[in-house]
Amino acid sequence: MKQIKLSTTGWLLLAAFFVSCQQQPQSNDKKTEMQQRPAYAIVIHGGAGTITRASMTPEKEAAYLAALDSALFLGETVLQNGGTALDAVEKTIVFLEDCPLFNAGRGAVFTHEGRNELDASIMDGTTQKAGAVGSVMTVKNPIRLARAVMDKSPHVFLSGRGAEQFAIENQIDTIDPKWFYTDERWKTLQEMLEAEKTKGKTGSLEPETRDYKFGTVGCVALDKEGHLAAGTSTGGMTNKRWNRLGDTPVIGAGTYASDDACAVSCTGHGEFFIRYAVAHDVWALMSYKGLSLADATDFVVNKKLVEKGGEGGLIAVDKNGNIALPFNSEGMYRAYAKPGERKILIYK
Amino acid sequence: MKQIKLSTTGWLLLAAFFVSCQQQPQSNDKKTEMQQRPAYAIVIHGGAGTITRASMTPEKEAAYLAALDSALFLGETVLQNGGTALDAVEKTIVFLEDCPLFNAGRGAVFTHEGRNELDASIMDGTTQKAGAVGSVMTVKNPIRLARAVMDKSPHVFLSGRGAEQFAIENQIDTIDPKWFYTDERWKTLQEMLEAEKTKGKTGSLEPETRDYKFGTVGCVALDKEGHLAAGTSTGGMTNKRWNRLGDTPVIGAGTYASDDACAVSCTGHGEFFIRYAVAHDVWALMSYKGLSLADATDFVVNKKLVEKGGEGGLIAVDKNGNIALPFNSEGMYRAYAKPGERKILIYK
Repeated sequence: MKQIKLSTTGWLLLAAFFVSCQQQPQSNDKKTEMQQRPAYAIVIHGGAGTITRASMTPEKEAAYLAALDSALFLGETVLQNGGTALDAVEKTIVFLEDCPLFNAGRGAVFTHEGRNELDASIMDGTTQKAGAVGSVMTVKNPIRLARAVMDKSPHVFLSGRGAEQFAIENQIDTIDPKWFYTDERWKTLQEMLEAEKTKGKTGSLEPETRDYKFGTVGCVALDKEGHLAAGTSTGGMTNKRWNRLGDTPVIGAGTYASDDACAVSCTGHGEFFIRYAVAHDVWALMSYKGLSLADATDFVVNKKLVEKGGEGGLIAVDKNGNIALPFNSEGMYRAYAKPGERKILIYK
Repeated sequence: MKQIKLSTTGWLLLAAFFVSCQQQPQSNDKKTEMQQRPAYAIVIHGGAGTITRASMTPEKEAAYLAALDSALFLGETVLQNGGTALDAVEKTIVFLEDCPLFNAGRGAVFTHEGRNELDASIMDGTTQKAGAVGSVMTVKNPIRLARAVMDKSPHVFLSGRGAEQFAIENQIDTIDPKWFYTDERWKTLQEMLEAEKTKGKTGSLEPETRDYKFGTVGCVALDKEGHLAAGTSTGGMTNKRWNRLGDTPVIGAGTYASDDACAVSCTGHGEFFIRYAVAHDVWALMSYKGLSLADATDFVVNKKLVEKGGEGGLIAVDKNGNIALPFNSEGMYRAYAKPGERKILIYK
């Protein structure tokens, strides 16, 4: 398959173009509860973390806004044309994986050993079938592989070399791992390795670079048929070791979807999201406690996770098209669209 | 470390000894709800599946009963002596992993390629910290490695070669994979490979051998301090491929524990247990819907999973020492003990 590879400068130019022709946000942030189910709804995230205006240049900000806009546009178009929530989620995440700005696919962070180990999962709210892959190193779009695991295997969760073998057997694009390389992520790893040498091996991240924990991408969608889907993809944490898996490939932690309630995709300090089964917890609060999507997601992200020390956020859409995008970190790359409503956001 | 290796005949002799001196079950099966919290409670399982009297020999049955009795005795002793639920769970599962009768550690089933790939997880109900490992091939006791991941790493979930490297760095026993070999499991793989050749490659199991999906082991415990813990360990499914992970290493699916409600360990068709986040679902039904442990576990195992086609069972203990051992398959190797109450069971 022919690959289009843009340099960082290329991305910035593309960004400027997208921003110049981008539809301006027209709604306000509070207007998320709808009385009547909209024809469709889509929410995306590009990771939560220490994202502040102070740490941004105008060019970088424009590039992120443009990339989020393009990803949203792709998914929205699928839904507008009557496509499935599942296809919208997959297509949107493929774009975010290919975009070097985000920590997933191309642009993924590096492990301690200097590799890119990618995790992804997807879940169909209608059938509650799911697919997940962990620690793959040669698959161009891990979300496509997760979808293939769901559609073409009797399993939910494949890992490592075995998952890569499954990709080959099912004609999912594999690629030279160099594809995932970006100077910025490599530099971050070198800085962290240097810091480790100075401060002693901690196995964990230095506070000043901790936003590199959180650059996961994700998408949730409601289609015209009323079906929900959720998907998440990530390179994990910079300097991770021992084939660490975060919450992204763990169904119930990083991703969950069920047509009877909601679809959820998370981003944050994965270990906490696993321990509190965050995505399933949102579903359970709605299903068993009767909370609204807004209350359920607010409770989990801004109360439970804050009390436990788990930094991050999530995106969610319920069966009625209500959406939520809460996060307890300083920023989260995020965007959403419904008919007549569209917004792209970074900061609090 | 010196290893004691018993032949199958040796195990049967040991079994006869244990059965001869075993304390007889004194309580009846219904007496599981307690008004006052018992000093401790422990429940174990050795897998659910197509386990019928017709498929058993008296010798085999005696061996299973003896092994369950010994495992239960080990965990019970920890609790009686004021040890933690976490230590009771780990020690009990180490025994079950070393016993070749169960599909975990020694005696694990074989993958399509003829390997033993082991998964395990453990969770501390007090801190809600957790540790999990997937697809390890050289670690004698995967539950010990899961415990080390929880105690000694900033992570929850390690996999494959990376997890094995972590084991070496943390002095967790590694071993020649031949340790896990048993004739019976090898024979089962050969039968399935033969059946595949005849019937075409399906990637899934033949019905007649489907109990080999379910030989997971697990333990949940309540200690004298009122703390809960849960752990699970498995070799997965015979003939599994592509580094498939089941529910066992997935916190929220195969294992969950929280002192505020319950500790749960599952066994069954793992893909279903992942999709419905079974262990966390039991916790959520108790926490958010106010169900008793008996009602929550009955709903999940005998209603939800049955409706969805997910075969298996689980063991659970709540903060008041109530226990539950529901399964929707034909049998489940299981046992439990509280002060003055002790039972070892196989069939419905």
